[in-house]
Amino acid sequence: MFLTRSEYDRGVNTFSPEGRLFQVEYAIEAIKLGSTAVGLKTKFGVILAVEKRITSTLLEPSSVDKIMEIDSHIGCAASGLTADAPTLVEHGRVETQNHRFSYNEPMSVESTTQALCDLALRFGEGDEDSMSRPFGVSLLIAGHDETGPCLYITDPSGTFWECDAKAIGSGSEGADSSLQEHYNKEMTLEEAELLALSTLKQVMEEKVTASNVDIAKVAPTYHLYTPAEVEAVIGRL
Amino acid sequence: MFLTRSEYDRGVNTFSPEGRLFQVEYAIEAIKLGSTAVGLKTKFGVILAVEKRITSTLLEPSSVDKIMEIDSHIGCAASGLTADAPTLVEHGRVETQNHRFSYNEPMSVESTTQALCDLALRFGEGDEDSMSRPFGVSLLIAGHDETGPCLYITDPSGTFWECDAKAIGSGSEGADSSLQEHYNKEMTLEEAELLALSTLKQVMEEKVTASNVDIAKVAPTYHLYTPAEVEAVIGRL
Amino acid sequence: MFLTRSEYDRGVNTFSPEGRLFQVEYAIEAIKLGSTAVGLKTKFGVILAVEKRITSTLLEPSSVDKIMEIDSHIGCAASGLTADAPTLVEHGRVETQNHRFSYNEPMSVESTTQALCDLALRFGEGDEDSMSRPFGVSLLIAGHDETGPCLYITDPSGTFWECDAKAIGSGSEGADSSLQEHYNKEMTLEEAELLALSTLKQVMEEKVTASNVDIAKVAPTYHLYTPAEVEAVIGRL
Amino acid sequence: MFLTRSEYDRGVNTFSPEGRLFQVEYAIEAIKLGSTAVGLKTKFGVILAVEKRITSTLLEPSSVDKIMEIDSHIGCAASGLTADAPTLVEHGRVETQNHRFSYNEPMSVESTTQALCDLALRFGEGDEDSMSRPFGVSLLIAGHDETGPCLYITDPSGTFWECDAKAIGSGSEGADSSLQEHYNKEMTLEEAELLALSTLKQVMEEKVTASNVDIAKVAPTYHLYTPAEVEAVIGRL
Amino acid sequence: MFLTRSEYDRGVNTFSPEGRLFQVEYAIEAIKLGSTAVGLKTKFGVILAVEKRITSTLLEPSSVDKIMEIDSHIGCAASGLTADAPTLVEHGRVETQNHRFSYNEPMSVESTTQALCDLALRFGEGDEDSMSRPFGVSLLIAGHDETGPCLYITDPSGTFWECDAKAIGSGSEGADSSLQEHYNKEMTLEEAELLALSTLKQVMEEKVTASNVDIAKVAPTYHLYTPAEVEAVIGRL
Amino acid sequence: MFLTRSEYDRGVNTFSPEGRLFQVEYAIEAIKLGSTAVGLKTKFGVILAVEKRITSTLLEPSSVDKIMEIDSHIGCAASGLTADAPTLVEHGRVETQNHRFSYNEPMSVESTTQALCDLALRFGEGDEDSMSRPFGVSLLIAGHDETGPCLYITDPSGTFWECDAKAIGSGSEGADSSLQEHYNKEMTLEEAELLALSTLKQVMEEKVTASNVDIAKVAPTYHLYTPAEVEAVIGRL
Amino acid sequence: MFLTRSEYDRGVNTFSPEGRLFQVEYAIEAIKLGSTAVGLKTKFGVILAVEKRITSTLLEPSSVDKIMEIDSHIGCAASGLTADAPTLVEHGRVETQNHRFSYNEPMSVESTTQALCDLALRFGEGDEDSMSRPFGVSLLIAGHDETGPCLYITDPSGTFWECDAKAIGSGSEGADSSLQEHYNKEMTLEEAELLALSTLKQVMEEKVTASNVDIAKVAPTYHLYTPAEVEAVIGRL
Repeated sequence: MFLTRSEYDRGVNTFSPEGRLFQVEYAIEAIKLGSTAVGLKTKFGVILAVEKRITSTLLEPSSVDKIMEIDSHIGCAASGLTADAPTLVEHGRVETQNHRFSYNEPMSVESTTQALCDLALRFGEGDEDSMSRPFGVSLLIAGHDETGPCLYITDPSGTFWECDAKAIGSGSEGADSSLQEHYNKEMTLEEAELLALSTLKQVMEEKVTASNVDIAKVAPTYHLYTPAEVEAVIGRL
Repeated sequence: MFLTRSEYDRGVNTFSPEGRLFQVEYAIEAIKLGSTAVGLKTKFGVILAVEKRITSTLLEPSSVDKIMEIDSHIGCAASGLTADAPTLVEHGRVETQNHRFSYNEPMSVESTTQALCDLALRFGEGDEDSMSRPFGVSLLIAGHDETGPCLYITDPSGTFWECDAKAIGSGSEGADSSLQEHYNKEMTLEEAELLALSTLKQVMEEKVTASNVDIAKVAPTYHLYTPAEVEAVIGRL
Repeated sequence: MFLTRSEYDRGVNTFSPEGRLFQVEYAIEAIKLGSTAVGLKTKFGVILAVEKRITSTLLEPSSVDKIMEIDSHIGCAASGLTADAPTLVEHGRVETQNHRFSYNEPMSVESTTQALCDLALRFGEGDEDSMSRPFGVSLLIAGHDETGPCLYITDPSGTFWECDAKAIGSGSEGADSSLQEHYNKEMTLEEAELLALSTLKQVMEEKVTASNVDIAKVAPTYHLYTPAEVEAVIGRL
Repeated sequence: MFLTRSEYDRGVNTFSPEGRLFQVEYAIEAIKLGSTAVGLKTKFGVILAVEKRITSTLLEPSSVDKIMEIDSHIGCAASGLTADAPTLVEHGRVETQNHRFSYNEPMSVESTTQALCDLALRFGEGDEDSMSRPFGVSLLIAGHDETGPCLYITDPSGTFWECDAKAIGSGSEGADSSLQEHYNKEMTLEEAELLALSTLKQVMEEKVTASNVDIAKVAPTYHLYTPAEVEAVIGRL
Repeated sequence: MFLTRSEYDRGVNTFSPEGRLFQVEYAIEAIKLGSTAVGLKTKFGVILAVEKRITSTLLEPSSVDKIMEIDSHIGCAASGLTADAPTLVEHGRVETQNHRFSYNEPMSVESTTQALCDLALRFGEGDEDSMSRPFGVSLLIAGHDETGPCLYITDPSGTFWECDAKAIGSGSEGADSSLQEHYNKEMTLEEAELLALSTLKQVMEEKVTASNVDIAKVAPTYHLYTPAEVEAVIGRL
Repeated sequence: MFLTRSEYDRGVNTFSPEGRLFQVEYAIEAIKLGSTAVGLKTKFGVILAVEKRITSTLLEPSSVDKIMEIDSHIGCAASGLTADAPTLVEHGRVETQNHRFSYNEPMSVESTTQALCDLALRFGEGDEDSMSRPFGVSLLIAGHDETGPCLYITDPSGTFWECDAKAIGSGSEGADSSLQEHYNKEMTLEEAELLALSTLKQVMEEKVTASNVDIAKVAPTYHLYTPAEVEAVIGRL
Repeated sequence: MFLTRSEYDRGVNTFSPEGRLFQVEYAIEAIKLGSTAVGLKTKFGVILAVEKRITSTLLEPSSVDKIMEIDSHIGCAASGLTADAPTLVEHGRVETQNHRFSYNEPMSVESTTQALCDLALRFGEGDEDSMSRPFGVSLLIAGHDETGPCLYITDPSGTFWECDAKAIGSGSEGADSSLQEHYNKEMTLEEAELLALSTLKQVMEEKVTASNVDIAKVAPTYHLYTPAEVEAVIGRL
């Protein structure tokens, strides 16, 4: 049975007899090994928070970039194979800059998300921009456009959904049920910061400190919290 | 026996000794795992309805796009691998816009459907527009052209048929027999809305609500129902 | 023994130790699974007739195109993988139109047939026009040129023959022996219509009706019978 | 042992440990399954004769082309996979026409044969003109140039020899020994016609008739016998 | 179990069922076979030190280049497959020179590191600059830019981190714990030289001499120590 | 053990664990199956002689070309897969003509030989001029340039040596020891003719006649002996 | 275990689970089968010496080129697959000539060596200049540039080292220990000639003669010894 499965994996983009794409499913497994990230949408903006998994005191925490800016009105948090994220983010930056250049307006968050998913979908095609395997990374995309604040989640299959609150990575299961319990649409940004951090705290093995979590908001522009700002949120916790 | 089959799958587009194309058959299996969609043609227009499978209250229902506009006179409902549908729909949008530009008239629904099937047929060819595997998606294409309202169904093999009423996805078997029993060509649009929704209701595991089904009509232009309009149809049910 | 065969199939266009091309033989099997089609040549023109295999009353019979026009003086009936036929037919349409444009005369039926077979032969070559596998379709090509009416049959190996009367598809064996018995070169078109239909009737599982068979003639131009005209032939049966 | 062989076939153009090219040897097997063809050179011209294997009275004998003209001074008879021959013949036609155009003289028969063999040799190279497998066809090439009448035989390995008389196809063994016994260089064309036909007769299962054999001569120009002319030779037999 | 793993390795860039990329993990193994390298960041500059593994007295020590200059403000130490390092270093040299040419300023150390990782990530893509396998080399990149001294570590997956002190290669485990114990941010350059060398000494099998270790600093420009300078540090040890 | 070997053959140009290239070794086996050829260098010119293996009296001996002219001062004898030789010879003709055109002097025999070996070496590279497998042919290249008469031998690995006398093909072992015994550098051309022929005679199964051996000399220009000239040498034997 | 290894060889440039590149290791085996070559650096120049393995008295010794000139100030000795060396040497000649043309000065020996190693490293990449497998050849590169005399050794992995004295090929182990014992940096060129030859003598099976060894020096320009000069050195031995 297991041997039979492995037959299908060699063609990176091939259906199994049951109609499944194993390479995509395996890439989704890669995300389940990744660090946890959390996103929450409020009326006043979107909060992203990630654990950083700093394993050594000699590593510089700020060099572990799991939250990245795509455009001034869009940021994202990544979980899974960290090294795959910059390719997607860079693609998003080019797309959003091209949009600004062509239409003299910011690209909508949904169009940006669709552009990243189009790239993710076409793995194994031999295209110039695509990978030879699925991207082993899931993104929480936070943005603010003419429709107001919005939060999207993408997965390696190239699918995306809009959501109010969502967690990805190894602790996503526990984090999601925590979010489902405590989240409400009328939260303030400050309440969202606290919920994001307390949700992370539940699923992290180490203590939460300013150096092993990152927080960012898009409200309405992207801002990555300084260690002091993170410290302040931890203090309020 | 099973091992032998798997030999053929590696060449994505290769005949088995019995003259079968397994990758296409496996892609058809992918559709049997998808959410159910229903289409009905009346003299007054065509109705499409899909279940949305919203698994979490934190997901935004409107971001689950299983009914999409191709041109102002053509829409489609997808079932199977959701992420594959936008590539087909985008191809259809380009084709119909090119047609309008070249001939100054809307493209016929049949030609549009043929264009999508041509793309689906050529998987594994290494062409710029084609996929390296069959599209794991089936479409119900609803349209209105000079021949009046029309409804087409496509499958991953690149075959299409015109039909009066049809269901695709995991519940298609039950839904089809329900349609065959209750459908008649003289239905009004309102009766078709109700039949579409009651058919979906039979095969869905959850309760039918405005957030977990989508309805659209082409009569004679494409219109996706607002939650309120869906609610109204549910009310009449 | 069976395992050994399968070794050769992976190279789509590779000889077996006995000098056979299995992928071509398997494609021929695909045709034996297809619906039956019949062609008859008379002095007054050529008749094509096919069964349509309409499985649901909700399908629109006219959308099941198994007889297609290539040029005003050439038509063809297909059996096997229906989705493969349009590529061949479209290729034929381009070739015949190019011929008219270049030479200001209709392309001969034999040259048109050769052009389709050239395309069929070159599968697996990676050419722009060719498939990555053999075409899983057989064609009866009916035409009328300066040599008078003519009827050709093609198969997936790219071979073609001229014939007086021929059947293809799942019922071809029974149909061929029926044709061999009843056909004569002096038949009228009306007699040919009846023989084509009675031959189909023998091998079809359902009753013959205007919606589950198609008839066309090239005499000297292509004409697909309307349901009423089919009905009239059935009446005379 | 057999399994080991099959390992080498997958690379279409790969040596076995014994220094053999199996795909070429298998293609030669394909010719042993083909219909028999015979060629004889006399001082007055060259005779080609083939069996046509007409299996049904409804097939048009003249559409089974196993003898083809390459240029007005060169013709050839093919045995093996019939569908492969036109590609070679067409290549020969282009080469001979180019030669006439460039040098204003007919191409020599040996150069023409070499050109066909060059094409045959380069299978599996991915060239524009070449096949992805060996050509499964052997040719008897009859011509007349400034060196007088000449007869060449080619095989799938791209080798060719000049000969006085030669048979190819399933009956070639019996036919060759018959030719070796009865052929002499001083024969007239009429005697050669009779020897060709009587040789074919020995190895054919059916009766020799004007519709199941073809005869052609190059003396000094190519001429395919009409059914009446074939009938006349049969009469003299 | 082991056999199953090997199935995945053939596709160089393919996920295993557990979401792992084995070729990358195997490349990381190649680094564990390499010689040890150590990097330390101080307020006054960065120190790199490597063992050279000179196996014969007839080899010229200075030709074993495991520390290389990328730009005047950036150097790196390599461990793993020595032959892979120059491709990365050369890529870095081109990138930094292009940056100077385009923007008239030195490229930041982080951007340079990202550029090397982008190249490392895209193995198996068939791009002009990329390898067909992961680079089997890990780099310690020392630099000095407007943010002051900085030290990065890259691995074959294309991931990088900033760190204060880090060891790579076969002795990295022991060296890392030694660094973690003795390193502090307030060290002088001279103290860092000593700590680097004493750390190497612990994990090297041979005696530390001026010919079997190399030391370099970036403070603020790259300087590779002469044998005499190395000797001096050894003397102070 | 044997199975393990076969693993390596699939990559046509891949080392085995013992550092061997099996496809090249197998191609060398193909030469051991070929007809014997002999070359001798004298002060007055070089003699080449080959057996022709005419299997049927109906074959034209002169069409079996195993000795070919490359340029007016260079000829070669081939053994192995006869069909591979013309590609090499044609390449040599183009190279020597280009040299004459560019430098207005004949190309040296060594440069010509190197050019043929470069082509032989690069099999499996996908280059325009190269084969997808090793050339299954060995050449004795006889020439006369400013260094006087010279004789080279090439093999499928792309290696070549200059020699005084050498045999290739199935009888090469016996022929080589015969040459080693009887050859001396002071021979006349006539003595060399006799030694070449008597050497061939020892290893041939049939009687030596003017139709089953070919002889050529380069002294200082290439000349292929007429049947009468061959007869004369046989007479002197 | 052995079977598992062979899995990795099929991808020519793929890591094994232990982080090894087997094709490179196998190519290194090919060198262990090659003839022995020796290089020695003195203050006055560099000496190269090789055994020629002349197996037949009919072979011309001077045609066995195992020492070759790259530029007037650089020569090299090759061991392993002799046929691979000219590609590297030719690449070196082009690079050094381009350097002279562009910069009007000789290329440094180290840069030349790096250029050859870059080519060696990129096997299997499908580049225009690269091989589809590792080069099965090791080079001793002797040169003289502004840094004085220098000697480099390269291996199939693309690694190179500078050394004072080194042997490669089947006898390298014994030769290296002999060199380590007898070499000193103050040797004269004449002493180096003697040590090179006596070292070869120890590891060769045949007697050392002027026809089965070659000697060259770069002092400061490349000079290949004539047979008389070799004879003189043998005399002094």
